This record gives sequence, structure tokens and C-alpha cells, in this order.
Amino acid sequence: MRRFPQPIVNLVAAFSRLPGVGPKTALRYVFYLLKQPKADLSVMARALVELGEKIQVCEQCFTYSERTDCEICTDPKRDPSVVCVVEESRDIATIEATNVFQGLYHVLGGTLNPIEGMTPDVIRIKEITDRVEANTNIQEIILALSPTIHGETTMMYLQKQLARHGRRVSRLARGLPVGATLEFADEVTLGDALKGRRGI
Amino acid sequence: MRRFPQPIVNLVAAFSRLPGVGPKTALRYVFYLLKQPKADLSVMARALVELGEKIQVCEQCFTYSERTDCEICTDPKRDPSVVCVVEESRDIATIEATNVFQGLYHVLGGTLNPIEGMTPDVIRIKEITDRVEANTNIQEIILALSPTIHGETTMMYLQKQLARHGRRVSRLARGLPVGATLEFADEVTLGDALKGRRGI
Repeated sequence: MRRFPQPIVNLVAAFSRLPGVGPKTALRYVFYLLKQPKADLSVMARALVELGEKIQVCEQCFTYSERTDCEICTDPKRDPSVVCVVEESRDIATIEATNVFQGLYHVLGGTLNPIEGMTPDVIRIKEITDRVEANTNIQEIILALSPTIHGETTMMYLQKQLARHGRRVSRLARGLPVGATLEFADEVTLGDALKGRRGI
Repeated sequence: MRRFPQPIVNLVAAFSRLPGVGPKTALRYVFYLLKQPKADLSVMARALVELGEKIQVCEQCFTYSERTDCEICTDPKRDPSVVCVVEESRDIATIEATNVFQGLYHVLGGTLNPIEGMTPDVIRIKEITDRVEANTNIQEIILALSPTIHGETTMMYLQKQLARHGRRVSRLARGLPVGATLEFADEVTLGDALKGRRGI
């Protein structure tokens, strides 16, 4: 990058570490911020510090929360007999938005991908098997991972690990998404949609 | 956005104000930051605060600097008889990188665009005319604005304003950029390149 005053260079360096942000985009952010009132800079700075200070990880489901026992795990209205395994904390928000699931969660923290260093001991596989073993009232584990190569591998691995505990292990249905056209559906999805057809 | 702990929501809101960043991108940034060491968050927070505290505007050329008299304006090796008018502070870095220009600068702070509220009194047109009037040793003013509609309008306007002071007013040459092919050059650029041809 070209010569700018040090405070600009420092912030550009900090922003450049964000995913998908290069020095040019970072510089654009900085020049935008320079035109804003100084209070906006303090607000962003405070939000960053608070993120580091206040966000913790729930000790049971490993989601990000302001407490070590998250709102979902401690909600007496939730059904503790069903645990939904998701890849990341943000997937919980996506599933919660459907208003369909009333059970608890388990955040895996990634999917199996040995080339990228994501081996079974790096993601929280032991934590979910331990939890299932310790809680005899867990009757079903829903594997809600994305149907990608790594997601499928992880679900297959988890299913084998959990099978020995004798609980029901399920996965999300595959089928046509709302608004899809038959013409452009791939054969695997369409095949699964046919196999999983429902009476109307 | 869906329900997340307040510190996450706050930072997403702050990041969403950056240009080209929506709630989804902001959330991606926040989840990336959550996986980084806490020291990284403090570094970014400190850089933000320092940007607000340390960056000032040069009183002569209006570029961003750590002082109110910038390094270029106070450099005795620079030629004070030529002033280059640019749109934004960052354009100075681009021109400096060429190592061709040794004069001083004037940052306009935008180009004329009345629909967006950029009228002659919003950008620093009075400041440059006042500066030219006060400094009789300024012999040439280079208008280094982008050859877009708004840039051209602004250059035309500035040229009229500056004409009465009897100094040389020039603009950047139009021609083929390095690596261009004649086949795809537009007729205006090619016409100007022909008119501005040089002996070799």
C-alpha cells in the first residue's frame, strides 16, 4: 500500500484481516469512516471491545452467548429429548427462524475436512457423544449439517459414533426448495424428493 | 437480522454502515472475529479510536494527515508554483506513486453533482480560488480529476473560476493506457490520443 498517515495504515491492516477484505476494500472502509462523525468510530470500537469481553461459549451446546449457560439450554419450555447438531453458532439463528424446532442444540464448530486440519478431535464430536451418553433422556439427534461433501462426511461419521448409544439419529430432508423448477433440479435431489414423497 | 447476543448485534450494526457491507457480510466479519484471539479485537478497536483522535486535515491542502500542516505542504523540496487539484485525499497517494509530480496539492473533497447535493459551496472550490489569489507564486493549476461526467463538469467549472486569475490551468492527458489495444479504444480517447501525439 502507498504511503498514508500511520493511523490510516494501522486500521487498513486491521480491516484487511477480515474475510474477503483486501487492502483496497480496507482503504475504502477507512476513508468512509474518516468522513463520519468521531462518535461513530467510538461506537464501533466499543462494540469490538464488548464482543471480546462479553461473548462467551455455552458450556453445554457451545453456542456464542453472553453467559456460559445459554438462553436455549436453560429455557424450561424447550424439549431436552431432541438435540440438533449444527456446524456453527449462526446456524442456530437460521433454524430458530423457522419456529419448527423446539429442542436443544450442539455446535460442532466445523465439519470434517482433514486437508484443512479439521479432524474428529478438532471439532466437537467427543462432546456430543459424551453428552448423549450422560443424558439418557436424549431420544433423538438431528444432524442439521449442510449437504456438502464435508457435511455429508461428518454426518456419516457422527451417525456411526452415535449409533452405539441406541438413540434415533436423523438428518434434514432432501427435496426441492420453495420456488425451484423441476427442470433444473439435480437428479440426486429429485431422486430423494421422490423417495421422500408425502401424501397430500 | 435474527436473534443473536447483544454484543454481536451491536457490532453487526456498526459494520453494516461500512460501504458495500450488508448485515450478512457484517455477520460474517463478526463470526470471523469471534474465532480470533481477543488481542486482535483490541488492536482493531485501538486503531479505530486512533483514527478519530490522530487524523487531522491539513489547513492548506485539506489532505488527511497527523498534523494540520501536512508533510507535502511543509516539504521545502516541493515546488510551490504548481498545485494539483484532486478529488480525494487518497488520490494524492496514487499520484505520489508515479514520482512524476513535485508540486503541492489541493483536495476538493468531491466532484460537482447537484443531484447528490454536491454543489460548488459544498466542495472546496472557494478554498482553491482563495489560495490561488493569495499566492501570486502559483503559476499552474493541474486539474487531476477523473474524466467522468462529474469530473469533467467540475474541471470545466474550476477552469472558469480560475481563468480570471490569469494562471495556467491544465488537465491530465487523455490517451491510450499502457497495455490497451487500439481495437477496443473508444473514439473519444483515440481522438484525443491522436491530437496529443508526440514525436519519438
